[in-house]
Amino acid sequence: MRAVDIIARKRDGHDLNRDEINFIIRRYTNGEVADYQMSALLMAIYLRGMTTEETLALTEAMLHSGEVITFPELPGKKVDKHSTGGVGDKTSLILAPIVAAGGLYVPMISGRGLGHTGGTLDKLESIPGFNTALSLTEFRNVLHECAMTLIGQTAEIAPADKKIYALRDVTSTVENIGLICASIMSKKLAEGIDALVLDVKTGSGAFMQREEDAVRLAELMVETARRMGKKAVALITDMDQPLGRFAGHSHEVIESIEVLRGRGAVDLRDLSLELSSWMFYLGERTKSLDEGRALAEKLVASGEALEKFRKGIALQGGDARVIDDYSLLPQARNRKEIKSRSNGYLAATNCMEFGIALATLGGGREKKEDTIDPGVGLEFHKRIGDAVTTG
Amino acid sequence: MRAVDIIARKRDGHDLNRDEINFIIRRYTNGEVADYQMSALLMAIYLRGMTTEETLALTEAMLHSGEVITFPELPGKKVDKHSTGGVGDKTSLILAPIVAAGGLYVPMISGRGLGHTGGTLDKLESIPGFNTALSLTEFRNVLHECAMTLIGQTAEIAPADKKIYALRDVTSTVENIGLICASIMSKKLAEGIDALVLDVKTGSGAFMQREEDAVRLAELMVETARRMGKKAVALITDMDQPLGRFAGHSHEVIESIEVLRGRGAVDLRDLSLELSSWMFYLGERTKSLDEGRALAEKLVASGEALEKFRKGIALQGGDARVIDDYSLLPQARNRKEIKSRSNGYLAATNCMEFGIALATLGGGREKKEDTIDPGVGLEFHKRIGDAVTTG
Repeated sequence: MRAVDIIARKRDGHDLNRDEINFIIRRYTNGEVADYQMSALLMAIYLRGMTTEETLALTEAMLHSGEVITFPELPGKKVDKHSTGGVGDKTSLILAPIVAAGGLYVPMISGRGLGHTGGTLDKLESIPGFNTALSLTEFRNVLHECAMTLIGQTAEIAPADKKIYALRDVTSTVENIGLICASIMSKKLAEGIDALVLDVKTGSGAFMQREEDAVRLAELMVETARRMGKKAVALITDMDQPLGRFAGHSHEVIESIEVLRGRGAVDLRDLSLELSSWMFYLGERTKSLDEGRALAEKLVASGEALEKFRKGIALQGGDARVIDDYSLLPQARNRKEIKSRSNGYLAATNCMEFGIALATLGGGREKKEDTIDPGVGLEFHKRIGDAVTTG
Repeated sequence: MRAVDIIARKRDGHDLNRDEINFIIRRYTNGEVADYQMSALLMAIYLRGMTTEETLALTEAMLHSGEVITFPELPGKKVDKHSTGGVGDKTSLILAPIVAAGGLYVPMISGRGLGHTGGTLDKLESIPGFNTALSLTEFRNVLHECAMTLIGQTAEIAPADKKIYALRDVTSTVENIGLICASIMSKKLAEGIDALVLDVKTGSGAFMQREEDAVRLAELMVETARRMGKKAVALITDMDQPLGRFAGHSHEVIESIEVLRGRGAVDLRDLSLELSSWMFYLGERTKSLDEGRALAEKLVASGEALEKFRKGIALQGGDARVIDDYSLLPQARNRKEIKSRSNGYLAATNCMEFGIALATLGGGREKKEDTIDPGVGLEFHKRIGDAVTTG
């Protein structure tokens, strides 16, 4: 078997079989297949597509390129959520404490901001001292102690994905449903979870702007999870406008704490509770979604979810006093109000532009090496359908 | 301008403009665009295609990535021939001496064997001492002294082509008409020639097995030459069976000398004379093709062409005694006859298989580093249409 023949087969529109996919991923991970061969193959995949079988085989090959964690010692089910990303999407910071407080384990491996979207790791790192780069042993220890952990991809987890992802980013091969599915699922399935809730965003602020693409990606991910013996469900949710009232790292931490206090924006609170209820249901903590929702609401009302978040922050080295004193979080130095120039109703937003504006102000990266200004943020005073008056 | 955006544009089926093509070739040549970005772009070009305008721009960008030779001091026209390659195709060794003996200059930069095809450089190197790696100064000196030079691509000539060619070979992006055209023409136009005769092979032993592909490539190359102010003509010629009676490096040198002696296989002799007559005609040495043909025949009959070859070999360090003593050339140690198992007529050959057989026997390379056994060869006793009897 030769890499060049595998590339030619995909180039000519043939399906790759499991042996070919395993061969190429194994050789690429250990450096025997070169970056320039993988990028040619990725472009051929981008333009020729992959079948569900190929996507499944690719996901498994990438998953098994590294360590697959298991937690046989933990008494409860392990569940996680993954969002395809958007503007102001901070539900992980809310639902992880809720679900952990409810008796399930949430071993969450998250990502950084990408393009116009924010990343969970970047948001958490706006909390002074918070360490997202735990070793697998530390990850396991924190999970034992408070049932939730929020870390970044380690070198042990799906190293093939790490290499391929970096390559896709610089070769214009990101936006392909099969490659996206394999990237997400190879990481998530390495977490040792029993069930996964997928939040697939669609709209002007999402990667999948067209709903049909979001649905295809959702179906592909759920099928991949099912075939690998994991429970999974996907929600297609709106990203035509920012989620919640704030975008920007420290601002999103504050807004998440607010929701955990039973306050905060209605849309954000609703989605967080809905995702939590699915996690409770798939994790067999509750017998129905309604019961899951009631449990989530109770854990917020009682303050148990907030206390779980406080404990999680402290266990990962963060300054947990931020829960009660937002002034300990970074703030923007300047403030500017954008006023309406006319009366009327807010009909639509170009949501991606908000993300790009935030990134341009320092809240995102242009190159991998760039550092983020975690204090920069946007506040949205009106939502689609709201009446606005001049000024 | 960013490489990643240029890749995305081609990926999405857009035409690249001249600035984008110049940008990517310049940056790739100097190492600012990585191999893995170029290979993704090559795959996108392979699958999306290029317009004539794009091909022209790419050819020019590759041509100007290095030195473009000129010979203002030479009194006559400079002409060359390029063949897309096949099995037993040794016409360069025959027509270069004929055309040089006829008063034109032939500054020929040739290639090595590729896949199932033989390479002019490899054939010449079967002559003891023959040096194909001349510097540009030596190239110029030999051309001054005997009006013909046969060398390999130097580091100064179209370095972008050299890098891209090596990459295409290992990323399954060879067989694309636009990329083939740009590769051939960027090298040939760097030779400082006034006119070019193209021999585009089609049939079971050619890269372009379908005649329609050969015609498209021929038209594209002629158009490219025309747009760059050079005279060019393309002949579509048969490669459904080997050209001449022999394939294999030293065997082809011997067969070329035989043709220059007025002997040798009829098909090889005919094609060599026809290509020579086109070179005389395009180089304005004769007023018609018929006159060119007559001149070529006269130069063979008089022995002038053979003496030119002898001088050319000596000037490039080769042992010119091979002209009169074939035993100075490498020979195969073993000999095996393949006999017909039935009576009948030879209906067809799988010509590429001959080339692969020759390569497998040591007359070709599997990896770039492999060395060739120049004594290995095949002799073809029958041609398509010939009667064969058992044994």
